[in-house]
Amino acid sequence: MDPRITVVTLGVRDLARSRSFYEDGLGWRPAKGSSGDIVFFSAGGIVLALYPLAELAKDAQVEVGSGFGGIALAQNVRSPAEVDAALVAAVAAGGKLLKPAQRVFWGGYSGYFADPDGYPWEVAHNPHWEVLDDGRVKLE
Amino acid sequence: MDPRITVVTLGVRDLARSRSFYEDGLGWRPAKGSSGDIVFFSAGGIVLALYPLAELAKDAQVEVGSGFGGIALAQNVRSPAEVDAALVAAVAAGGKLLKPAQRVFWGGYSGYFADPDGYPWEVAHNPHWEVLDDGRVKLE
Repeated sequence: MDPRITVVTLGVRDLARSRSFYEDGLGWRPAKGSSGDIVFFSAGGIVLALYPLAELAKDAQVEVGSGFGGIALAQNVRSPAEVDAALVAAVAAGGKLLKPAQRVFWGGYSGYFADPDGYPWEVAHNPHWEVLDDGRVKLE
Repeated sequence: MDPRITVVTLGVRDLARSRSFYEDGLGWRPAKGSSGDIVFFSAGGIVLALYPLAELAKDAQVEVGSGFGGIALAQNVRSPAEVDAALVAAVAAGGKLLKPAQRVFWGGYSGYFADPDGYPWEVAHNPHWEVLDDGRVKLE
């Protein structure tokens, strides 16, 4: 199996609410194929999908849990100032600030917000990682 | 905030066990910067990180839940045969088959396996989505 993730799907409790957060709040444009049943965003070479939580659980044949599910999404940016700006934008969009931006132990600067379902997003500047022109991160 | 995911971090209960699943089982090569504290894989333009669950929860300042956390990862491949092959490889690596590969309602062919922490991975062939030469999916 190749080392590749192509889609991250968030199981959401209210598809319209979540779509509005990402589309109206953050300004992300839904991709072709988005509908009242599922929403896709092109997210830097991979796809972020929003899908009703119960449907996703059924699709994967797993039980719905509660609380933090153990997965965090992240967006790496090019400077601490970009971290601050992204967190301000996310909170303005209705996101909840989980952790204010701060210097962190691994040498970077980062903070977290939660989307409408509580999914944690980190916004980080990592001085050891190169962010390419297209926004992707290069690892060796 | 730009529409971009650069990292997906899985909070894992046993870092060595999870690393072995991805590295020895699936054959993915840890990237520079991987250590006994955290493991990074380059996963098709984004980064898959493995990090101890309690540390991730602390980092994001969230509580650890239980059961399915509502996020599914996916890898899109180019044919139903590639779906079958990837699922066989994942199970051979110690993954648990959640859903055998099958024709699904949206017109594709897909199945799911769980990694050692139960994180659901879908392996899918979607005839409506183009998989680029570098393995990424193109959305319009």
